[in-house]
Amino acid sequence: MFEKEVYIARRKALLERLGEQKGIALFLGNVDAPAQYKDNCYKWRQDSNWLYFFGIDEPRFAATVDLETGEETIYADDFGIDDIIWMGPMPSVRSLAERVGVAHTAPYDALAAALKGRPVHFLPASRYYNRMKLGSLLGLDPSEVTSAGKAGCAKASEPLVRAVISLRLVKEPREIAQIDAACALGYEMHTVARRGIRPGRIEQEIVGEMEGVTLAKGWGTSFPTILTQHGEIFHCHSHELPVEPGKLMVIDAGAEGNDHYASDFTRTYPTSGRFTQKQRDIYQTVYECNELAFSMIRPGTPYRDVHLAVAAHMLDNLRQLDLVRGNLDDMVADGIAGLFMPHGLGHNMGLDVHDMEDLGENLVGYDDGQTRSPQLGLGSLRMARALAPGNVITDEPGIYFIPALIEQWKREGTDKGRVNYGKLTEYYDFGGIRLEDDVLVTEGGARRLGPKRLPIAPDEVETAMENDRK
Amino acid sequence: MFEKEVYIARRKALLERLGEQKGIALFLGNVDAPAQYKDNCYKWRQDSNWLYFFGIDEPRFAATVDLETGEETIYADDFGIDDIIWMGPMPSVRSLAERVGVAHTAPYDALAAALKGRPVHFLPASRYYNRMKLGSLLGLDPSEVTSAGKAGCAKASEPLVRAVISLRLVKEPREIAQIDAACALGYEMHTVARRGIRPGRIEQEIVGEMEGVTLAKGWGTSFPTILTQHGEIFHCHSHELPVEPGKLMVIDAGAEGNDHYASDFTRTYPTSGRFTQKQRDIYQTVYECNELAFSMIRPGTPYRDVHLAVAAHMLDNLRQLDLVRGNLDDMVADGIAGLFMPHGLGHNMGLDVHDMEDLGENLVGYDDGQTRSPQLGLGSLRMARALAPGNVITDEPGIYFIPALIEQWKREGTDKGRVNYGKLTEYYDFGGIRLEDDVLVTEGGARRLGPKRLPIAPDEVETAMENDRK
Repeated sequence: MFEKEVYIARRKALLERLGEQKGIALFLGNVDAPAQYKDNCYKWRQDSNWLYFFGIDEPRFAATVDLETGEETIYADDFGIDDIIWMGPMPSVRSLAERVGVAHTAPYDALAAALKGRPVHFLPASRYYNRMKLGSLLGLDPSEVTSAGKAGCAKASEPLVRAVISLRLVKEPREIAQIDAACALGYEMHTVARRGIRPGRIEQEIVGEMEGVTLAKGWGTSFPTILTQHGEIFHCHSHELPVEPGKLMVIDAGAEGNDHYASDFTRTYPTSGRFTQKQRDIYQTVYECNELAFSMIRPGTPYRDVHLAVAAHMLDNLRQLDLVRGNLDDMVADGIAGLFMPHGLGHNMGLDVHDMEDLGENLVGYDDGQTRSPQLGLGSLRMARALAPGNVITDEPGIYFIPALIEQWKREGTDKGRVNYGKLTEYYDFGGIRLEDDVLVTEGGARRLGPKRLPIAPDEVETAMENDRK
Repeated sequence: MFEKEVYIARRKALLERLGEQKGIALFLGNVDAPAQYKDNCYKWRQDSNWLYFFGIDEPRFAATVDLETGEETIYADDFGIDDIIWMGPMPSVRSLAERVGVAHTAPYDALAAALKGRPVHFLPASRYYNRMKLGSLLGLDPSEVTSAGKAGCAKASEPLVRAVISLRLVKEPREIAQIDAACALGYEMHTVARRGIRPGRIEQEIVGEMEGVTLAKGWGTSFPTILTQHGEIFHCHSHELPVEPGKLMVIDAGAEGNDHYASDFTRTYPTSGRFTQKQRDIYQTVYECNELAFSMIRPGTPYRDVHLAVAAHMLDNLRQLDLVRGNLDDMVADGIAGLFMPHGLGHNMGLDVHDMEDLGENLVGYDDGQTRSPQLGLGSLRMARALAPGNVITDEPGIYFIPALIEQWKREGTDKGRVNYGKLTEYYDFGGIRLEDDVLVTEGGARRLGPKRLPIAPDEVETAMENDRK
């Protein structure tokens, strides 16, 4: 938790940005999420918007801000003797409220009465409990209080959502320090994982070693770990395969610190310690794309343009490998890169690894006037905005060979004759490659986050793996 | 997953136990639980009742069993191309159904129509999504479809709940093998943790090392790890303290295997490697209670009686330390042991660490005719039933000194003059001790689960810690 002035200043800024809005802004913290039954819950994780404005890292808190008078109230219940036996003594709600500069407190169940008869501005809820709770507090169906996918924020308050996004998009120096620390922990995780890659081991063993690192020093992983020799499957969470020689191992994993800021790195390793020529050709292209993107990151540049520049560079190299054919500009315009990189170049990162995704992808990642492309790949771009100092984004190009997708394009002629399907069949068991860094937009350009960069150039990777085995 | 005959046989037995019931039995698998937003979920965990009867370890499955015709249908959706890109190819719903011996399949959203106009038997839901889903499928409020705490099963089907409990209470040999394996993994976790205890280290570092062990070989922990020098707080999940010499460290942690069976062990260690005399006196008592309980476990003995025998032995020893005074039988009857052990002696364990707790504690843990005590301690006993071969239970006595609770008893005279409050003040910074094993009830008596027992006798513990430091 930061000092109380931080939270006071953030809420003051929020109130200012909400200008002439009437009524009450409502903030719901999380409750514990049962994994099996009420008394066996997943690891406690507070809501990120709550953490940003109210900081208290305990379950079953809510707050209101009266947009007309500025009055702030925290709703929560003090511990009784049963709570103390099972969970230990807790500071009083009043003293916790005081630590984040909130003057008024009330019991949790007083919330409903406080909202009666006033316009209520609320943020979209993702967790099912909060959907139910908002639904019952506001007389809405739970499906109406979550963000409407990419498109908008359903019945949640767009002015409130926009005001929160405008603040959280620009990281404060104290937040950047936390993200740097999470990146340092991510560096440790990835280093342990890379050292664990040896043919014959089970993927899960490496996952466990890596996750142990972040559990020992931070909250845990910032998202479910991807560690797979099937890099062509983006969210592959099965880890039961033995490490086989000659494969590529994609490791996409990050740490969440004890203060809940995230890191998110991806590296791809040759399981034998050395790339084959075929692997190296594709790897080199992805590496160049990562470097190209970083070189373009500076205030004012739309990240959408960086995505498209990466797509062009990727297609140019793939053309040299005779995997695609034709005019480069046409291929970019027709979204041919999406066959090889069906995801976007990057996303915002902060208290959430996909920062603020609960508030609606388009409102978070797109400037007014930018429209989201329907194309595969570009259509999955989560951050398209013109960059501004204080933005923290990921730079994560990738190339994948996904047989089911290639076959679909071939069947449907999606490529308009640009793809050399014959040659592509040689890549059906290739897997995929992704290389991801976390980047801060600075006044003068960009800085990669974390104290050290994980080895990334092909020779650097091979040298690191050779040293690992000494 | 077991072979298909296992699931067929379990469902057949269920149908038989439901006898003349009419209508449809409904089973809901889990969906992913968002930690922050839809695309950042907690680690996937299937519903245990679903696993028991239908085995398929994938999200968004449901099933019906027609109690009149015996017809079984699984409701789920096949993967489209987007799912394949992000999550990889998955076997068809039809082939998954075939692997657990179910003949019919239908789309997930066909479930609502299939229930129309028929009496529906359902199990209580704990996860918030399933509460919402059941609510909307059955036209009930989400609060009516969860188990009504200890007391019953609200609007869920008591015949179905009772039938499921009667089956899952008695573990099959293949389940016992899985629990033995989870206990082996729990043994490894605890051994790593014990070796990690050295003054100056942060508790969280030890937690991370220990959890890495189970993540490397199993699903993860079977519940949030308790590792604390404040053993008097039962569910202490903060791990930020440095290990201090002269303290007692309670470690209550278990593994969940990849097939989702649990283990659950507790040991208490002197952080300096040797017990003080004061620590040893209390430790010896808890150890004797653990041994006494184990010696009494055999078919036919109500576990409630074992709890009470442990309470008596504990009070007898505490009387010798002049912490309590008076007639032993009276003290047991008045629940004086609850001041020192405000929890029950143990619980069932299987696919859930508190097995089937979602179905209602009393229905799971109490025989017809047994009523739950309102006393502190005995009132928290989760397993009171007469033991039967195949039951798997925990044996976990403990002694704690909880200042807030002691002060409350003193203020309210709850002890009827039996407690020596003066002497007790010397124990206000003692913490707590708990010693827990997992036990199978056999035809002839009992067997502790797992290949080896963690060191537990006071000398044994000191020797193990001495060897750890060599």
